[in-house]
Amino acid sequence: MAPAKGILERLNAGEVVIGDGGFVFALEKRGYVKAGPWTPEAAAEHPEAVRQLHREFLRAGANVMQTFTFYASDDKLENRGHKQSYTGAQINEAACDLAREVANEGDALVAGGVSQTPSYLSCKSEADVKATFKKQLDVFIKKNVDFLIAEYFEHVEEAVWAVEVLKQTGKPVAASLCIGPEGDMHGVSPGECAVRLVKAGAQIVGVNCHFDPLTCVKAVKMMKAAVEKAGLKAHYMVQPLAFHTPDCNCQGFIDLPEFPFGLEPRILTRWDMHEYAREAYKAGIRFIGGCCGFEPYHIRAVAEELAAERGIVPPGSEKHGMWGAGLEMHTKPWVRARARRDYWEKLKPASGRPLCSSMSSPDSWGVTKGHAELMQQKEATTKQQLKELFERSKTH
Amino acid sequence: MAPAKGILERLNAGEVVIGDGGFVFALEKRGYVKAGPWTPEAAAEHPEAVRQLHREFLRAGANVMQTFTFYASDDKLENRGHKQSYTGAQINEAACDLAREVANEGDALVAGGVSQTPSYLSCKSEADVKATFKKQLDVFIKKNVDFLIAEYFEHVEEAVWAVEVLKQTGKPVAASLCIGPEGDMHGVSPGECAVRLVKAGAQIVGVNCHFDPLTCVKAVKMMKAAVEKAGLKAHYMVQPLAFHTPDCNCQGFIDLPEFPFGLEPRILTRWDMHEYAREAYKAGIRFIGGCCGFEPYHIRAVAEELAAERGIVPPGSEKHGMWGAGLEMHTKPWVRARARRDYWEKLKPASGRPLCSSMSSPDSWGVTKGHAELMQQKEATTKQQLKELFERSKTH
Amino acid sequence: MAPAKGILERLNAGEVVIGDGGFVFALEKRGYVKAGPWTPEAAAEHPEAVRQLHREFLRAGANVMQTFTFYASDDKLENRGHKQSYTGAQINEAACDLAREVANEGDALVAGGVSQTPSYLSCKSEADVKATFKKQLDVFIKKNVDFLIAEYFEHVEEAVWAVEVLKQTGKPVAASLCIGPEGDMHGVSPGECAVRLVKAGAQIVGVNCHFDPLTCVKAVKMMKAAVEKAGLKAHYMVQPLAFHTPDCNCQGFIDLPEFPFGLEPRILTRWDMHEYAREAYKAGIRFIGGCCGFEPYHIRAVAEELAAERGIVPPGSEKHGMWGAGLEMHTKPWVRARARRDYWEKLKPASGRPLCSSMSSPDSWGVTKGHAELMQQKEATTKQQLKELFERSKTH
Amino acid sequence: MAPAKGILERLNAGEVVIGDGGFVFALEKRGYVKAGPWTPEAAAEHPEAVRQLHREFLRAGANVMQTFTFYASDDKLENRGHKQSYTGAQINEAACDLAREVANEGDALVAGGVSQTPSYLSCKSEADVKATFKKQLDVFIKKNVDFLIAEYFEHVEEAVWAVEVLKQTGKPVAASLCIGPEGDMHGVSPGECAVRLVKAGAQIVGVNCHFDPLTCVKAVKMMKAAVEKAGLKAHYMVQPLAFHTPDCNCQGFIDLPEFPFGLEPRILTRWDMHEYAREAYKAGIRFIGGCCGFEPYHIRAVAEELAAERGIVPPGSEKHGMWGAGLEMHTKPWVRARARRDYWEKLKPASGRPLCSSMSSPDSWGVTKGHAELMQQKEATTKQQLKELFERSKTH
Repeated sequence: MAPAKGILERLNAGEVVIGDGGFVFALEKRGYVKAGPWTPEAAAEHPEAVRQLHREFLRAGANVMQTFTFYASDDKLENRGHKQSYTGAQINEAACDLAREVANEGDALVAGGVSQTPSYLSCKSEADVKATFKKQLDVFIKKNVDFLIAEYFEHVEEAVWAVEVLKQTGKPVAASLCIGPEGDMHGVSPGECAVRLVKAGAQIVGVNCHFDPLTCVKAVKMMKAAVEKAGLKAHYMVQPLAFHTPDCNCQGFIDLPEFPFGLEPRILTRWDMHEYAREAYKAGIRFIGGCCGFEPYHIRAVAEELAAERGIVPPGSEKHGMWGAGLEMHTKPWVRARARRDYWEKLKPASGRPLCSSMSSPDSWGVTKGHAELMQQKEATTKQQLKELFERSKTH
Repeated sequence: MAPAKGILERLNAGEVVIGDGGFVFALEKRGYVKAGPWTPEAAAEHPEAVRQLHREFLRAGANVMQTFTFYASDDKLENRGHKQSYTGAQINEAACDLAREVANEGDALVAGGVSQTPSYLSCKSEADVKATFKKQLDVFIKKNVDFLIAEYFEHVEEAVWAVEVLKQTGKPVAASLCIGPEGDMHGVSPGECAVRLVKAGAQIVGVNCHFDPLTCVKAVKMMKAAVEKAGLKAHYMVQPLAFHTPDCNCQGFIDLPEFPFGLEPRILTRWDMHEYAREAYKAGIRFIGGCCGFEPYHIRAVAEELAAERGIVPPGSEKHGMWGAGLEMHTKPWVRARARRDYWEKLKPASGRPLCSSMSSPDSWGVTKGHAELMQQKEATTKQQLKELFERSKTH
Repeated sequence: MAPAKGILERLNAGEVVIGDGGFVFALEKRGYVKAGPWTPEAAAEHPEAVRQLHREFLRAGANVMQTFTFYASDDKLENRGHKQSYTGAQINEAACDLAREVANEGDALVAGGVSQTPSYLSCKSEADVKATFKKQLDVFIKKNVDFLIAEYFEHVEEAVWAVEVLKQTGKPVAASLCIGPEGDMHGVSPGECAVRLVKAGAQIVGVNCHFDPLTCVKAVKMMKAAVEKAGLKAHYMVQPLAFHTPDCNCQGFIDLPEFPFGLEPRILTRWDMHEYAREAYKAGIRFIGGCCGFEPYHIRAVAEELAAERGIVPPGSEKHGMWGAGLEMHTKPWVRARARRDYWEKLKPASGRPLCSSMSSPDSWGVTKGHAELMQQKEATTKQQLKELFERSKTH
Repeated sequence: MAPAKGILERLNAGEVVIGDGGFVFALEKRGYVKAGPWTPEAAAEHPEAVRQLHREFLRAGANVMQTFTFYASDDKLENRGHKQSYTGAQINEAACDLAREVANEGDALVAGGVSQTPSYLSCKSEADVKATFKKQLDVFIKKNVDFLIAEYFEHVEEAVWAVEVLKQTGKPVAASLCIGPEGDMHGVSPGECAVRLVKAGAQIVGVNCHFDPLTCVKAVKMMKAAVEKAGLKAHYMVQPLAFHTPDCNCQGFIDLPEFPFGLEPRILTRWDMHEYAREAYKAGIRFIGGCCGFEPYHIRAVAEELAAERGIVPPGSEKHGMWGAGLEMHTKPWVRARARRDYWEKLKPASGRPLCSSMSSPDSWGVTKGHAELMQQKEATTKQQLKELFERSKTH
């Protein structure tokens, strides 16, 4: 059963659509995803865990249930050494069923997602790469998802190929790159990336993962400006990290020494999320969600910040109250005194770690270096080089 | 169905027993518990969410499923303004059923827990307070939990009363105070507290909540030294916060300006948990678990650190690998290079928050002041004063 | 008595010329300069203090003694409410005599300096402003300084006027702006500023004050690139702050909340100075000195880093040893172990301030905002507006 | 010429006596003292530099000029490998003359100082050690200093010997240990140390160096309590570091990895000094000065804070104004707005170092360990061990 109102109808009507949060990081902490391969076999192995996380995001206010199919292309599953009790098709199908089951419990859409492939990095042909997307797509068609997202692409060329495949279905297509204001891995600017994606047929463009919320909003603003300058039309989406990344270079949080097992001190508070939601809204972005690091309460904070604009408070706010109003029932009087917006907006939370610094040096390049210098130092990451990296990585 | 081997048999045999993590904080983030009242009605309202969290802790290696009955005494539920669709008894029963259901999926014991009561703070008589505990206890007996825990007590006197009630059941009794090395709210030292609890009949004593792991281990060491000096025998338990609290005074993290909605930067990494597990083990503590802030992966880290001692790797490690071995399958070569113990043990994670400090001033007292001065400044927190606080809080 | 070899002969020969450090901040800490007016009446009032500071910089390796005539134009002295026991001429003459006296004790040149004037800010005509410079210049001619520096200009237009006046003397002229990579207060880029100054006749161009060393070196590199691109020739100078300013906007450290009485935690170590000297040298800058915050040991560190290139160790190194070799004579063995380059190069010094953050929000604009946004928000600082500011400031 | 009013007359009358700051660190930065040996040959080699620093402290409000004779005992001068152009006697005499010359320019007393000796550390007999003190003392008698200070002793036994020698002169004797609240290197508590020193004849007791101001004040309060409890009478002095040292163990700042060339971020602001002066005064300490790290403006801040109590503003305040009032004459309006006490009292200055932490791990012991554990781990530092350390150090 598909909901009455599709993604484009909602966005065309000016509605705010709340996305869900990232599944791989949340389920890694719950014990169902392995950091490293990051594959989604849990959809088939532990459906109760995936279903529960869907429900929590729905309850937090999400209008989109993304199928937990990240890195679920066959080439990826094989490459990551997954001893499969389940085939890629089984995993993809199970993920679709779970998303639809929970979406039907509320007013949510199901989005089928494809992401970057080892095939591209190993320099397979356009036809080969597109065939990989097509295979995942068959499941999405069979399961009749409501719309499609090509997300987590570092190379706009591959994202364009994905959009071209997805467009053939006739379903609405969103395209989201994991890039920041510095652009994709070939140095193509966010604006240029967005123009190419819209021309390829994406109705919604934006960024996800790799950078913190305000950095991602900045990148999407650059996209929007370029799309409008080109005389094109699109909707915009943003699904950032829930980690502060002021010290990242163009590779994003992958480069931080804390990735992926020491990121705790960088986790955004719910109040940081209020600021994010407001900035995204002010930038004209209407599909606002999250990626790695987002827990249900982060999405709830986004929904609470935009409650007036959306005309609805998320179900989960029953256990929160706006701006932490529930604290009025705390035992200690000085904690009750914190049940107000002003307190939390001004708070600068301490790290509790006096032996730790506030910023890190990314692995590959120094934090103090400007972009121009970075680009000089960095050997151009050509597809040939990517191929070599890929080959070396296979030997592990 | 009770497991073959009880808590005391395990501890007497020298086994390490892994506790679970705190439910109220974890479920608050998932959208099922309200910060402020902190009551456990979710056991009846949303059993699937509570069941799932139990399962995740079991999968992480926990040998104990604590019934989600924190603050579930009738006086508390009423006091916190809970518009109940469910009675206290229904909530307590549902919590017992969920704990048992999941415990039976593995090798875990069910522990029924009681905690401090508004009745005590409002200076009800010993008989009144004991009657409150008795009421919760009736459920635990009916549901035949495997052992009992009196936990989260700030006043040793009330904890002793609780132990006296729990002892009447004939089941093993553990007693855990939410205090640090400075002792309880009347200034009774951890050692003296432990001696009183053991004399009252507790077979296991320790601390939970309010302080970070190393501080809690320190307090339990003081307990152990005093119990041994008094010629008594006991087992020891510790279930600390998963937040760094170097700047707390004797009230613990409740006093921090970040409590409860800005604690993210203080969250311990899994590697901090390895250190905690090792220190607790070295201190002779054999019941090692967690409280507020613990997520399943924190418990898994405790279980992984003590895998050799326990002779078992937790089921959830299938999705982790010791010391993050799963990273060997990551795409980026510099991330693959992090799949080793040495890297994570030495890492000092940055906060990503250059405008934030590393420590805070607790609300009530300055961070630079020594304990002696604190005690002078702090008006003695007598029961009379607590009564007044309580009365004032009720007007909210 | 002028030294045998002038500034241009030295620079043309490829020599490294070491500048001195800033006098106003150093003498403020010693009790002879008032923060706020920042005027140099100490040259006449307390010549022994000024002479001593000159000597310390000479001993540290400085080849240039700048006359302590900062803000010593008559309009400035009047404007700042200085109840003068000494006329501007007396102060300027005393400053020249002190610089020459000490310069003659070693191999140093005397440089006469003029800096930005209230006349410009209050929109006096080009003729009026130039007359102000001319008046100071008369003293420099009378005292026969070795060369002239127009320094601490925020507006390139005024600096060009200053150069035009100074050129009439026939003496070598250096021009130094207090700007960073974002350019002058009208948004003129460092490169364009430098081209204008060289065209106006300056033989040496560069920046001083307002930003930390690496930021200043970056700005001078932009100057050098633009001058060379324009087919012009010049020498380059840099005299930065001895404070870390990663969080400054285009106004520099004046905007930091810590300015001027809370900058201590930002003071550069001698090892930071080694890095600065090396970077400046590698950038092709050959006149390398310091401004506010520089103490004699900072200049000594610059001279020690470049000892091989200069073929000379500064006299003051007798009390230091390269890379702190003197520590070999310390009592404690673990301190003796620090008498090596590797130790100090790797050290990341702690602030000892757990309640303080590592960065600040500048007064006028937020630290997280990008330059483009800053420029939008900032009302164009026209001369008219500057005039108004000036008028308002006179009422104090 | 001695001043009309001696140190004891002043203290007996309840006056506040302001000490000067430390000479070795200040002159190291100016290029006249070598870190490592830390010897005061500059008194003879560069009298103008030493005289100027005396003058700056006098101008800042100091009532005491300590002779620059730290580590000027013959055994020390020899031990530190000083190729002497001057004998110890010449250095000591020159230091006395300089102190007297400047003292006579104001209302200051001259204090002759002796400090701990290599003879003690190498286990020479009491007679040998006392002979060393006697030799320095002969100069002080010849030059007729106003009173004597035995300072910078880590071992109370040696300090008692020093006091016994100094007492023979009939001049007032002060005794100051470089210890913190944890006591001397043999674990003798501050209180017990003070009692022994008073019994040995010291009229003034206190601490200097090694710890930050508030820690030193805390140690002196312990001294005062013990002396009063013992029914004795004394005056109290404190001359701390101008560095924040929250992370030190009992050895003080010598153990910090930043000692001595990376301490910049820890330097106290003038506003920290206001707090220090007030706390010292409130603790009943009336001889209030400084040690390593103190610059003239730090002493001026102490004198400004106590201006009302002393009935006098220091001469150097002419160039400052209370609470930075001089800023009212700054050009920028937002800097003028900082000319007020409230602004500076509340400011928490940023370090400008996002890659640095706020605390360090001292070299010898971990920062998180409590004192009791430290004492266990630390092998008892007996005189025998000290002898060995000393022997080893001589081979360098």
